[in-house]
Amino acid sequence: MDLTPEQRAEIDEARAASTPTRRATSPALEEVLYEPVPVLDHGFVRVIDYMGDDSAVVQAARVSYGKGTKKVSNDEGLIRYLLRHRHTTPFEMCEIKYHMKMPIFVARQWIRHRTANVNEYSARYSVLDREFYIPEPDQLAAQSVSNRQGRGDVLKGEEAARVLDLLRTDAQNTYDHYVEMLNEDEQGNLIDEGKSGLARELARMNLTLNTYTQWYWKIDLHNLLHFLSLRADAHAQYEIRVYAEAMMDSLKRWVPLTYQAFMDYRVGGAQLSAKGLDVVKKMLAGETVGQEDSGLSKREWRELMEVLGRDA
Amino acid sequence: MDLTPEQRAEIDEARAASTPTRRATSPALEEVLYEPVPVLDHGFVRVIDYMGDDSAVVQAARVSYGKGTKKVSNDEGLIRYLLRHRHTTPFEMCEIKYHMKMPIFVARQWIRHRTANVNEYSARYSVLDREFYIPEPDQLAAQSVSNRQGRGDVLKGEEAARVLDLLRTDAQNTYDHYVEMLNEDEQGNLIDEGKSGLARELARMNLTLNTYTQWYWKIDLHNLLHFLSLRADAHAQYEIRVYAEAMMDSLKRWVPLTYQAFMDYRVGGAQLSAKGLDVVKKMLAGETVGQEDSGLSKREWRELMEVLGRDA
Amino acid sequence: MDLTPEQRAEIDEARAASTPTRRATSPALEEVLYEPVPVLDHGFVRVIDYMGDDSAVVQAARVSYGKGTKKVSNDEGLIRYLLRHRHTTPFEMCEIKYHMKMPIFVARQWIRHRTANVNEYSARYSVLDREFYIPEPDQLAAQSVSNRQGRGDVLKGEEAARVLDLLRTDAQNTYDHYVEMLNEDEQGNLIDEGKSGLARELARMNLTLNTYTQWYWKIDLHNLLHFLSLRADAHAQYEIRVYAEAMMDSLKRWVPLTYQAFMDYRVGGAQLSAKGLDVVKKMLAGETVGQEDSGLSKREWRELMEVLGRDA
Amino acid sequence: MDLTPEQRAEIDEARAASTPTRRATSPALEEVLYEPVPVLDHGFVRVIDYMGDDSAVVQAARVSYGKGTKKVSNDEGLIRYLLRHRHTTPFEMCEIKYHMKMPIFVARQWIRHRTANVNEYSARYSVLDREFYIPEPDQLAAQSVSNRQGRGDVLKGEEAARVLDLLRTDAQNTYDHYVEMLNEDEQGNLIDEGKSGLARELARMNLTLNTYTQWYWKIDLHNLLHFLSLRADAHAQYEIRVYAEAMMDSLKRWVPLTYQAFMDYRVGGAQLSAKGLDVVKKMLAGETVGQEDSGLSKREWRELMEVLGRDA
Repeated sequence: MDLTPEQRAEIDEARAASTPTRRATSPALEEVLYEPVPVLDHGFVRVIDYMGDDSAVVQAARVSYGKGTKKVSNDEGLIRYLLRHRHTTPFEMCEIKYHMKMPIFVARQWIRHRTANVNEYSARYSVLDREFYIPEPDQLAAQSVSNRQGRGDVLKGEEAARVLDLLRTDAQNTYDHYVEMLNEDEQGNLIDEGKSGLARELARMNLTLNTYTQWYWKIDLHNLLHFLSLRADAHAQYEIRVYAEAMMDSLKRWVPLTYQAFMDYRVGGAQLSAKGLDVVKKMLAGETVGQEDSGLSKREWRELMEVLGRDA
Repeated sequence: MDLTPEQRAEIDEARAASTPTRRATSPALEEVLYEPVPVLDHGFVRVIDYMGDDSAVVQAARVSYGKGTKKVSNDEGLIRYLLRHRHTTPFEMCEIKYHMKMPIFVARQWIRHRTANVNEYSARYSVLDREFYIPEPDQLAAQSVSNRQGRGDVLKGEEAARVLDLLRTDAQNTYDHYVEMLNEDEQGNLIDEGKSGLARELARMNLTLNTYTQWYWKIDLHNLLHFLSLRADAHAQYEIRVYAEAMMDSLKRWVPLTYQAFMDYRVGGAQLSAKGLDVVKKMLAGETVGQEDSGLSKREWRELMEVLGRDA
Repeated sequence: MDLTPEQRAEIDEARAASTPTRRATSPALEEVLYEPVPVLDHGFVRVIDYMGDDSAVVQAARVSYGKGTKKVSNDEGLIRYLLRHRHTTPFEMCEIKYHMKMPIFVARQWIRHRTANVNEYSARYSVLDREFYIPEPDQLAAQSVSNRQGRGDVLKGEEAARVLDLLRTDAQNTYDHYVEMLNEDEQGNLIDEGKSGLARELARMNLTLNTYTQWYWKIDLHNLLHFLSLRADAHAQYEIRVYAEAMMDSLKRWVPLTYQAFMDYRVGGAQLSAKGLDVVKKMLAGETVGQEDSGLSKREWRELMEVLGRDA
Repeated sequence: MDLTPEQRAEIDEARAASTPTRRATSPALEEVLYEPVPVLDHGFVRVIDYMGDDSAVVQAARVSYGKGTKKVSNDEGLIRYLLRHRHTTPFEMCEIKYHMKMPIFVARQWIRHRTANVNEYSARYSVLDREFYIPEPDQLAAQSVSNRQGRGDVLKGEEAARVLDLLRTDAQNTYDHYVEMLNEDEQGNLIDEGKSGLARELARMNLTLNTYTQWYWKIDLHNLLHFLSLRADAHAQYEIRVYAEAMMDSLKRWVPLTYQAFMDYRVGGAQLSAKGLDVVKKMLAGETVGQEDSGLSKREWRELMEVLGRDA
């Protein structure tokens, strides 16, 4: 992550300000407000604003005239009940806004979550920064053999070196040509007076998908939990998962009771099908159950045994 | 609007609190935070929380590291430009949350706006208050003769008296029977030990549509403007329009620059069709244009002349 | 359910039509197209239109040039995989449209699902039918003692008779007064020439919440499954559950493979928390686990034992 | 647009099928169903499925038991009324599904419209085709001098030649390296047995933004009209506008009455602010009005005069 001195100064100025408010305030999140958390080689996540805290969830669930319940312990019990039983609307009553910088191929995966508000830096209007994501050597994974959509072992030796070289060289070359076509450098200076410069909205097409972009991204707490349950999961692509993990820390600071309930009920849990639940009940009753008499396909059986931590 | 002493105390307690925050703060909105504004005979609107201010719109439009632009005058110019040209996403970056009380038939119209988050007071779970909307005599309008969906002159004399009497009596009777079927009064006291009491989720069906309900309602600034442009409009039903008007005041306090741009560009403006615009151009050029040669139907012509303030 | 001869004729006319199409067609759903299925005493559900079938889910998942996969058995395997692993977007590619008639208090609960498109019959514009929901005696349940949001035993004897009488009488009286205030009967005939008649948008407020309304309601297959998983569930209020059950039949006709996967993976299944899963693993390994050492609260433990069909 | 023989055969097979249906059918759209319309150098748009027609809009607006009104002329009048007065929900009752191929930078702009359902071809799972967008010489526009977000004159001579050469060469090189890193050619054949091959989810990041992607995209008629009003507009970037224009033809075939109303009321029309409308009224009344006494800023005045086709 590379901030210009001017960007650093803008952030420091915002952090120095303090105004009294009557609103619900989350002190642990205030501590880190505006401060970028580095992610990948040039990316970051920083919280820009938030609305509500744990007690706001309770307040909405109760359609209350005051704040939450009388006791924190009651708030906690209600929040855990709401999350366990998927009463989702009270969690929609809190909102958080991030500023993030990430590679374009990560942004493309991210934006499939349509329940957020987004303002992306416009490459029709402005020139993108000369920043590309180049994976760390330990993230240079081969295609998985068993999973068409996953990673296998880490590449080694010459193959790894060649890949890193190609990624670096191609990103630099295409960016150099982007600047040449624009006829304008990153500071907006004209390069060659004899040229017109290609329109920004066209020149951008020469950039590679590991070029960094940035956006403001705002979402309510319910949809944030849904996003995190998918993207902080082990099955998510590493390059988006590291962003989700950085956001887990802001979640914990913002709404600690909701965070704990989320960890207890969503993370690390499992969904059992009716037939799968039946198998578990029989096993607990001491019956011997096999795939053939379970009503499950071989694949379903294997997945169930994995969940239960048993040999298939 | 009738607050219990306990409700009043809860509101006062919330208003008395003050916490420092690094977030964008809107002082004029802070002044009225939590305070209910009476609407209709028993309803109210009160702001519970908000996120962002005018500068947050600018900040998101610029995907900025700091706050807004350097000068308020620049912020204003950009906000007006964004609103005029329907660049809507930066306005989605501010959020506001209300607590409202309103008659059920108003709530039913309101909830067609699906872009908000809602937590309604549950009549499956709790007993509704004994409060019904009875129109003021000057709002007791006859069915419009020209507009199937509108109001005509105000009812008078015996007819008005009879209507008011029916509305009052029926609401009271059905509420009395609601309580009787529940076998539980509004304070939750058992009425007759020999009875079981009908389930709340069933008993509520006996209430009339002017019974008051309440909810928490949260929306982003863009969608709030859309809601207000429809519901603060003269064509909206009076009983929802008065709520929208009360919300216009909170809009003005919250984001004064956006409010002014909204008043200038959306409120009182008009949409001209291609053919309608053509008619205006010809008229301005001194040509005589009539309905027959305008390409407009008689109805469209009449609507255009109305917009232009001319005789059809 | 009471159709006028004119309504019956309109439905028969629509059912008699047949046009060739190149689109995916679902023969079993075509059979019942437009035909109302009675629900409650005056309500119905009927399918008006649909888009796509099981193979359309597969086609979208594969971003295919043709239809689905080559074999039905492959389509089935892929659909089950997608549903099991919550790859939801391909299910959004099918759409269904219903016409329904239901009591207003049911419509109010229903419309909280914001992911559907809705056109409701307008009581600002038209006069509502004289139809009210009166529960069958075996649905006249007392308030549950253990669950504030549920039903207990069925009311009996005098209490039941009194409740039914109140519901019937109040609905009739308020409807009679509605017509009187409108000064217009259900056929639109003027009642008293000396009166103006109250505006429809006001008169409707005198109706009780068991009055029937109707709407067109359109939703994609993914969101329909979500709706049905909540509303066809045993915890849903009976009066909405019977609608969801009628819709389960149209689901089965429309997309039989998706229906079967839905029954196998969503209906009757259970969500285990991380700690709950841990308890199950220990039990399967022959360990004795109790609530105290499980990390679960008493309530959570009781809920888990219920899911597993064991004594708490 | 380049279809493989297998893709062509799949499309022909789908087009050859014909099944009877009771559903509303749009004959002119059936004619072109499944058939790709070429857009840009390798892209296309083809309609995969649709639900409803003009009469379905009317049917929903009336919450009807049959189809539309009795006469086509009444349907037309009602559709025009609904569109003119922005009664949008009946238009949400029709749905259309497209399969499209487009450059990634176009897809990125497109997906900001969040009201559609999308299934994109997965470059985590599959290898993308060797196809890149290279603009026609007459679209090789310079950056606009007056509009930071627009195009100016067309580049000429050496500058144009150099730009085309860079775009072509960079796309080819980065694609060649993509294949090399994957160690797998476009047909899925292993290239070098001694190598592991980089994971697809990583290798894709080396592609340039003019690489073609494809997706299934489904939207309702109301949101389609909104999309087209923005993207078929002269201010939209050329590379997305040509897609919108191809879709205008399918709109015309699908719902001809709605299409005509859309052309008359939305396309080529203008939004006047309250102050702008005031200026027009004064001008029509023969008054002389200038920018200074109009209450409009210089920029607003200039924009108004442009709309009215007058000198500023």
